[in-house]
Amino acid sequence: MHDLITPAAPAPGGDTHSLATLHVADLVEYLNDLPEAVAAETLAQLPLERATEVFDRPELNRSGELLQALPAALSASILIEMSADRAADVLRLLDRAAQARLLAPLEPEPAGTLRRLLSYPEHSAGSLMTTELVSLPTTATVAEALRHIREVERTRETVYAIYLLDPRTRALVRTISLRRLITGEPEQKVMDLALAREPVTVTPETDRREVARLFARHDLLAVPVVDARRQVLGIVTVDDVIDAMVEQGTEEAHRFGGLEAAVDKPYLRLGFGQMLRSRAGWLCVLFLGEMLTASAMQHFEAQLEKAIVLTLFIPLIMSSGGNSGSQATSLIIRALALGQVRLRDWWRVAMREVPTGLALGVILGVLGIGRIALWQQLGIYDYGEHWALVALTVGLGLLGIVVFGSLTGSMLPFALQRLGFDPASASAPFVATLVDVTGLVIYFSVALMVLRGTLL
Amino acid sequence: MHDLITPAAPAPGGDTHSLATLHVADLVEYLNDLPEAVAAETLAQLPLERATEVFDRPELNRSGELLQALPAALSASILIEMSADRAADVLRLLDRAAQARLLAPLEPEPAGTLRRLLSYPEHSAGSLMTTELVSLPTTATVAEALRHIREVERTRETVYAIYLLDPRTRALVRTISLRRLITGEPEQKVMDLALAREPVTVTPETDRREVARLFARHDLLAVPVVDARRQVLGIVTVDDVIDAMVEQGTEEAHRFGGLEAAVDKPYLRLGFGQMLRSRAGWLCVLFLGEMLTASAMQHFEAQLEKAIVLTLFIPLIMSSGGNSGSQATSLIIRALALGQVRLRDWWRVAMREVPTGLALGVILGVLGIGRIALWQQLGIYDYGEHWALVALTVGLGLLGIVVFGSLTGSMLPFALQRLGFDPASASAPFVATLVDVTGLVIYFSVALMVLRGTLL
Repeated sequence: MHDLITPAAPAPGGDTHSLATLHVADLVEYLNDLPEAVAAETLAQLPLERATEVFDRPELNRSGELLQALPAALSASILIEMSADRAADVLRLLDRAAQARLLAPLEPEPAGTLRRLLSYPEHSAGSLMTTELVSLPTTATVAEALRHIREVERTRETVYAIYLLDPRTRALVRTISLRRLITGEPEQKVMDLALAREPVTVTPETDRREVARLFARHDLLAVPVVDARRQVLGIVTVDDVIDAMVEQGTEEAHRFGGLEAAVDKPYLRLGFGQMLRSRAGWLCVLFLGEMLTASAMQHFEAQLEKAIVLTLFIPLIMSSGGNSGSQATSLIIRALALGQVRLRDWWRVAMREVPTGLALGVILGVLGIGRIALWQQLGIYDYGEHWALVALTVGLGLLGIVVFGSLTGSMLPFALQRLGFDPASASAPFVATLVDVTGLVIYFSVALMVLRGTLL
Repeated sequence: MHDLITPAAPAPGGDTHSLATLHVADLVEYLNDLPEAVAAETLAQLPLERATEVFDRPELNRSGELLQALPAALSASILIEMSADRAADVLRLLDRAAQARLLAPLEPEPAGTLRRLLSYPEHSAGSLMTTELVSLPTTATVAEALRHIREVERTRETVYAIYLLDPRTRALVRTISLRRLITGEPEQKVMDLALAREPVTVTPETDRREVARLFARHDLLAVPVVDARRQVLGIVTVDDVIDAMVEQGTEEAHRFGGLEAAVDKPYLRLGFGQMLRSRAGWLCVLFLGEMLTASAMQHFEAQLEKAIVLTLFIPLIMSSGGNSGSQATSLIIRALALGQVRLRDWWRVAMREVPTGLALGVILGVLGIGRIALWQQLGIYDYGEHWALVALTVGLGLLGIVVFGSLTGSMLPFALQRLGFDPASASAPFVATLVDVTGLVIYFSVALMVLRGTLL
């Protein structure tokens, strides 16, 4: 976060882009549209500060490739000047050999910092954090603090949160905000101004979801990342949290729609092959799952031949199971993501979903029976002499399927979380596939009970 | 945003909660679990500053009811002390009569501010903004600016962005960050320190989605809301944007799962009636839509009776259409939300979805044909003498349905946006319902062509 003031985009005026005055977000878009070699050449001719600003933007496409395409001295300078968290993000896109090549010309200290950042797992606070923070000993005065902040301001990701460390152990003791600091008298001790509260902290392993939850809960601008001895390893700033939330929202939306989560390019820039790969995989998996419906149908073929009228309602029954299942799944995935429900609550959720499913099933069952009775009475369609029993079969089938769908849909995210998967990978199509096969079995079992001796 | 430093939750230690030292986020949870009357009484006994902190938290449930339950003098003080944007949010939960009652004891100026905030549409920048900002004339010096900030610090939502206004017209000229301000010399003019760039601004009508996009794009901590004459009406701060993003994520996830969007209570606190209302509505609408599948099936009953083998693949065909449709929908909804695709791009999207759908359809069609051929050859199931034609029907049916599903699913969000609806209301179940009926028609039409003279 270099500054919180940024210009509006210039009016699109002809083709004489002045790359020096263009706002960095627009410059990034301009570079994204250039062929890679041309973009690299353009970058190489920008002033170092400007090129660094460009690489600092997560919106820059092909950032790893572009960095490699620059002269080694320039790429090294950019890696040093960039915010450390973003530099690590760019390096993360490359293989180990390329990382080593780019890190080789760096001084041991910045190279070590970047290597450490690279070692944290994806989506963890460690991978989001930057090491460019402001810290002071607890013994500092307000005047000393402000003098230090003025000196380091240009090289720190944020100066709005200042971390007060024990002068001996360098362990984190307090956090103070700049707004509070400037209200103090010059000779006052910063510790006396700081609130007498334990600061909110995270560890490098904390998941980005939990980090976002802390920011929302405590209205933070930055959170310190500490190790077991409360040494500050870095900070996660609010702008990185927003970027992570946007990325996570995209991944979840894609997963819920039955797509590869990591479709990270803009839709219109996806190549045909990439588009196909991101979609065909899941579609085939779901298709293979749905093949079980054909097996289930084959199993009940004798019943189908005797009572063809039953087939008329198969799509209706199946879709109702799928819909009630994906409702329950969306509700629980979101509740888990917001921390409203925890793994140990699965039983309480199940005990709520059964009565809810029963009530919803009764509603749909009555609608279904009503539809058949109405069509029969109005003479729109003739369901045969046993139409009332057919209607009963459909109604009871719907009841059973909606209960089953709600229960399965709500338990699936728990099961996935328990198994170590992201609960959000329970997509609507996935739930529907699961419920479809059992839905058919429930429907035909009900039919066998209700229609035995008449149609079957 | 009162301060960016907040304490960790105290260790849960027995039942002697000390409400004075408890962190506000925990105090809110504690109050949320109390019956309404008890919570109101507890609030009435807290110091005014503490009670204000509680009402400032969006996590407080029943905030409107609780405010009404307090003595009139206390509720008036709280409304004045609260951040204006949050006070308006609380009032928004009440009907007009209750709003008028609560605003009556206030001085004309704060009451007017709150009435104006209440007049902005939901989810707009106007409804998110607060009027508690720091502004200075462009003629101010750094020393004057810092003195002013120290004076007003306690009553402003943020002091990290300072708005420089034309001394005569009070129009916004520049924005300067506190971090930049403190690097200046006391006698320096603030205007000389400010970057010579037009500040990023929004209007009161700007949608929260666009506001979030600006924050992500420009790494903002606050954005000024201006009218046509560039008068600053208020600011939207980053903590409100994060809250809005979380809320919007929930609404979209719920809508995509076929639920009422505004299920705003935690899952385990939803009453049985609320739970049913939030789910039954959409489930019934979808059910009524799916009833058309029964009508479609009835229409093809003659074909069904002649070729019962066709029914075996109905679930497989239908679900493939639904899955390809909801993939395309999720992809486009997200691309629209991120601004990667605009309304006018619908034709470019359609021209990409047709070849993608064709390729995906060929893949699934080949899988389907392979399945039938394999089962037939291995003797697992006998699809009859015309099994090859049945396989061809299934394959061509899948091709047609996947193309149709991809195209429909991708165009639906555009159509909804064009009609003024939120494109995210195109839920997976909604798309599936739309595709199911047409899927059956496509399948039977293909069957009529392929199997005429043999099975049909």
